[in-house]
Amino acid sequence: MAAVAPENDHEHHRRVNLLPAAGRRPLGAAVRAGLKDTFFPDDPFRGLGALPPARRAWRVVRYFVPALDWGAEYSLGSFWYDLLAGVTIASLSIPQGISYATLASIPPVIGLYSCFVPPLVYAVMGSSRNLGVGPVATSSLLVASIIGGKVKASDDPQLYTQLVFTSAFFTGVLQAALGFLRLGILVDFMSRPAITGFMGGTAIVIMLQQLKGLLGMKHFTTKTDVVSVLRYVFHNTHQWQWQSTVLGVCFLIFLVFTEQVRRRRPKLFWVSAMSPLLVVIVGCVFSFLIKGDKHGIPIVGTLKRGINPSSISQLKFQSEYVGVAMKAGFVSGMLALAEGVAVGRSFAAMKNERIDGNKEMVAFGLMNLIGSFTSCYITTGAFSKTAVNYHAGCRTAMSNAVMSACMALVLLALAPLFRHTPLVALSAIITASMLGLVKHRELRRLYAVDKADFAVAAAALLGVVFHTMITGLALAVAVSLLRALLHVARPPTSKLALVPSVSGAADDASFRDVAQYPSAAAAEPGVLVLQIGGSAVCFANAEYLRERIARWVDDEAAAGEDDLVYVVLDMGGVTAIDTPGIEMLREVHGRLEKKGVKMAMTNPRIEVAEKLVLSGFVEVIGESWMFVSNGDAVAACRYTLQGSKHGGVPPV
Amino acid sequence: MAAVAPENDHEHHRRVNLLPAAGRRPLGAAVRAGLKDTFFPDDPFRGLGALPPARRAWRVVRYFVPALDWGAEYSLGSFWYDLLAGVTIASLSIPQGISYATLASIPPVIGLYSCFVPPLVYAVMGSSRNLGVGPVATSSLLVASIIGGKVKASDDPQLYTQLVFTSAFFTGVLQAALGFLRLGILVDFMSRPAITGFMGGTAIVIMLQQLKGLLGMKHFTTKTDVVSVLRYVFHNTHQWQWQSTVLGVCFLIFLVFTEQVRRRRPKLFWVSAMSPLLVVIVGCVFSFLIKGDKHGIPIVGTLKRGINPSSISQLKFQSEYVGVAMKAGFVSGMLALAEGVAVGRSFAAMKNERIDGNKEMVAFGLMNLIGSFTSCYITTGAFSKTAVNYHAGCRTAMSNAVMSACMALVLLALAPLFRHTPLVALSAIITASMLGLVKHRELRRLYAVDKADFAVAAAALLGVVFHTMITGLALAVAVSLLRALLHVARPPTSKLALVPSVSGAADDASFRDVAQYPSAAAAEPGVLVLQIGGSAVCFANAEYLRERIARWVDDEAAAGEDDLVYVVLDMGGVTAIDTPGIEMLREVHGRLEKKGVKMAMTNPRIEVAEKLVLSGFVEVIGESWMFVSNGDAVAACRYTLQGSKHGGVPPV
Repeated sequence: MAAVAPENDHEHHRRVNLLPAAGRRPLGAAVRAGLKDTFFPDDPFRGLGALPPARRAWRVVRYFVPALDWGAEYSLGSFWYDLLAGVTIASLSIPQGISYATLASIPPVIGLYSCFVPPLVYAVMGSSRNLGVGPVATSSLLVASIIGGKVKASDDPQLYTQLVFTSAFFTGVLQAALGFLRLGILVDFMSRPAITGFMGGTAIVIMLQQLKGLLGMKHFTTKTDVVSVLRYVFHNTHQWQWQSTVLGVCFLIFLVFTEQVRRRRPKLFWVSAMSPLLVVIVGCVFSFLIKGDKHGIPIVGTLKRGINPSSISQLKFQSEYVGVAMKAGFVSGMLALAEGVAVGRSFAAMKNERIDGNKEMVAFGLMNLIGSFTSCYITTGAFSKTAVNYHAGCRTAMSNAVMSACMALVLLALAPLFRHTPLVALSAIITASMLGLVKHRELRRLYAVDKADFAVAAAALLGVVFHTMITGLALAVAVSLLRALLHVARPPTSKLALVPSVSGAADDASFRDVAQYPSAAAAEPGVLVLQIGGSAVCFANAEYLRERIARWVDDEAAAGEDDLVYVVLDMGGVTAIDTPGIEMLREVHGRLEKKGVKMAMTNPRIEVAEKLVLSGFVEVIGESWMFVSNGDAVAACRYTLQGSKHGGVPPV
Repeated sequence: MAAVAPENDHEHHRRVNLLPAAGRRPLGAAVRAGLKDTFFPDDPFRGLGALPPARRAWRVVRYFVPALDWGAEYSLGSFWYDLLAGVTIASLSIPQGISYATLASIPPVIGLYSCFVPPLVYAVMGSSRNLGVGPVATSSLLVASIIGGKVKASDDPQLYTQLVFTSAFFTGVLQAALGFLRLGILVDFMSRPAITGFMGGTAIVIMLQQLKGLLGMKHFTTKTDVVSVLRYVFHNTHQWQWQSTVLGVCFLIFLVFTEQVRRRRPKLFWVSAMSPLLVVIVGCVFSFLIKGDKHGIPIVGTLKRGINPSSISQLKFQSEYVGVAMKAGFVSGMLALAEGVAVGRSFAAMKNERIDGNKEMVAFGLMNLIGSFTSCYITTGAFSKTAVNYHAGCRTAMSNAVMSACMALVLLALAPLFRHTPLVALSAIITASMLGLVKHRELRRLYAVDKADFAVAAAALLGVVFHTMITGLALAVAVSLLRALLHVARPPTSKLALVPSVSGAADDASFRDVAQYPSAAAAEPGVLVLQIGGSAVCFANAEYLRERIARWVDDEAAAGEDDLVYVVLDMGGVTAIDTPGIEMLREVHGRLEKKGVKMAMTNPRIEVAEKLVLSGFVEVIGESWMFVSNGDAVAACRYTLQGSKHGGVPPV
């Protein structure tokens, strides 16, 4: 049997605090604390209870409507900045709106509508001061590819468009619901590397789609993967029209050149911001003059004058179609959310501001919900617009309102002028804006720093390019989740030893992994100090930990000259424990006892200590064998060992 | 700006070991070490390289065929024990085999076949010395419910039976593949509470199915949920036959009584082990004498004499059926694996033996694969048989071989005698054996110790009872996975303070959570020591940790009288970090710097330190601000603070 120390042996060691001073937390309080930490890590309503009801309500309203916050102290000085920024992003929004709408296979004017209502809503509800809002390429193609699987845009354009509106409705419902339910946590599971890979793949796929416009083709495949698209393009060389290609290449060179100018001289951001509009105007005039549509340069066609008509009656909730609309809305909604929040956060970080993910979701949700009632399709925070907005010196979300006003002007007066826009101009604009999204430098950096992150990104990219966008997205999420689960399933364990301290004090600050500090000295002959690495000890790793601890003990027994008498488990890193975890500890304790080895435990955290008491494990191991620090534990082991040696009683 | 300490300030502090002594591990070695720890935690082939080739091969063979291990030193003494145990479990296997086959809606003789071949295979391959192998109720009903969704047993019994064989084939393939690929990790994700809940729900559902036999009904619903079954039973009172009910209740009382006897006196285990066979024999004689089938007591009917015929030609791989067979095989295979391994482990724990999960999977896989070629359906380690085997004093897997031999005798000579078995006897046997599976005590214990575990069990149970078995299983796995993910997504953070040490040494052993040790004293005015709780710092929690750290800093700044000058991050519990995690740390550092607060870091583990160096984060924070222990870090902060105070320069 193991040497069992009498109680008074440990008098000079600090007792571990197994339960908080106030005793066990009541269930309600524990659950509430857990929920609060899970869903309200930022605790937006801190100190609200102390306020009188009227002020409390006002603060809640102000929390949900940030415009009230910045509106109160808005100055003319800020307005001039916002006006400039707003006009600049409007000039970018016109060509982008038309382009992305064609990417989504819906009438181009819907792209313009989508740059009018949603930015207005965001100006009131949004918490970011930089975000430029509008349709984005990724979501446009994603919606098109999902809805196109059910109804082809070329077969029944009206039904198709109605389904696109309906999907925007579901996007809005989903986003707002996630925001109200504080489920921002879901977006966290789309990791940055996953998004990088997915975006890169999507950019490649979108550029491939632009071959239609750039080659002046009349028809095109509905597939998006690289093999199908290239096969279609090279099997249909008779569709190619050299006039479009020449024009497209000229536009593309111009756009890439202005982009390079902006990169070299960030002050000249307006050059690249205005260039798409310039391309559209030049293209319009050119195709109008030479009657392009009769000479191999297809044009956009009719664009109705007037602002957004209502689309409430167009939403389709029949059971036949609601499924596909819901799928398109939910999938593209999650993606748009991840993209928008990521864009907002990265620009907020530059200005050292904070973005509330859950509040942003509510704003995005309402934006899409109201958008779906007013002939808009899915919108989110767009990278290109946000970058231009930021560089143009925007001060508040007012710049979105200015953009919105400009779009209203365009819709009321100028829209019909754009009917001559050559499709190839749009293709050139989309291609140019996609070039920056294939972040090869970022991918190389990921490869250098973290192979697993690189694998996630590569899986997403290849999935999109060689199969479908959904495949890529699913792969990225699945691989990310698997990695997160592996962290839980395989917590590291390590043998600790004493890192010599300059002052000579032997406390467990100095107990460190021997693999990391090869100079560390073994704690005490006959004592094995094992650290159970971070993470919860739970069903997912109980079996693993049992095997791993057994192996550490076997290795120690095989290697050491002294008999192993004590195993000290350092539980400091263990954040939680569940019943299978406790069961495992009980079994490990039983096995060690049969070998004549005594188990001690150091520094269980409060959540773990609670469970150990409740389940009766503390009585199994003995409360006097639970210590605050490894130093205390080893000292107690040494004391008992020496006692038994002097007394002539073998410890085993 | 923050007070930046000159290099020589830290001379008296221990430097953190950022990279292992041998420099950065090469990619290959790191990946190999990671894979080994993930898939071979028990490292079965340790020290194999040192052996000559012949002995090495022999050891590998012995690893996969444990019978060679125990067979070499098998003695006659052991055999007598195994003989007794084998005969006892055979007497249990006959009624169980027939019963579970009827539960799976296949001819009863297949249940007997399944008690002949699979136990033989397991006797050779299995690593457990207690496990009794055979069909089990859960898998039987699960296979029936999945295949019954495609082909009804009453419509086309031959096709149905063929699909059951095919599903056993896929079960075998899946289990063997998982074992060879060392994917025991997948089974770990079915937590014990999830299995408890699922089994409890299934037991209830199975008992409801027995109402057919107990009420002597000729037809029955194919649904399994409680609402449908009860509605059917009470809408079809005209089918009830009181003769069956009277007989059934008598049998049930007898079986429950013998079970109670065994519980009170474990020595009398053979009473409850033999009682099902007794019930069958009495039932046979009784129904033969009174011609039961003509007086409201349906019987089993024909049972062919002879051992297992080959069923290779019966396996169905046509695309029309292969899907459902695969689904049934995979789902029930995973479940059978989880059940079998759990049963094996819990009995091994009593004898302090070790079960190798991956080896067990290979054994189960081969058992089902060979079984599917020899007219057997899915088998696994059965709880009731294992318990009887254990109590009967079995020594090795030889008891399974003995049972197999007994079954061969029965099949060759006695099978036709069982044709008079009343169905109600089988229903009584099944009902009695299911009573013990609704573990209400275990559920109550879960509720007391861990509400979340209870929720998992309850979800599984209710899912099975009120919807379908698949729903229950999916719910259990989904909730379990969600919990595991939450552990990663919401790592605890805590503020540390100094727990007074008896010896007076102020090393960071003594830095503990203030919430747990309210008596702990603040480390040093102006210094906040934050512990990032266990788990990896990764994409899933980067946003959360950013918010949480910001809130700790805000709270500290609001509460403290002194200005906050240093934030020390204790990284000891962080087991891994990925690029989004590093990005988060970089941002936190940037924000703190803007507030004039300097960040220090203590004790990053080897995996984390490697990444911090590779990504350049160490240069951001400054290598001299990374410490081995919190004690060192706080001492350095104090030193710099005093220096700046004495020099009259404010630190902020």
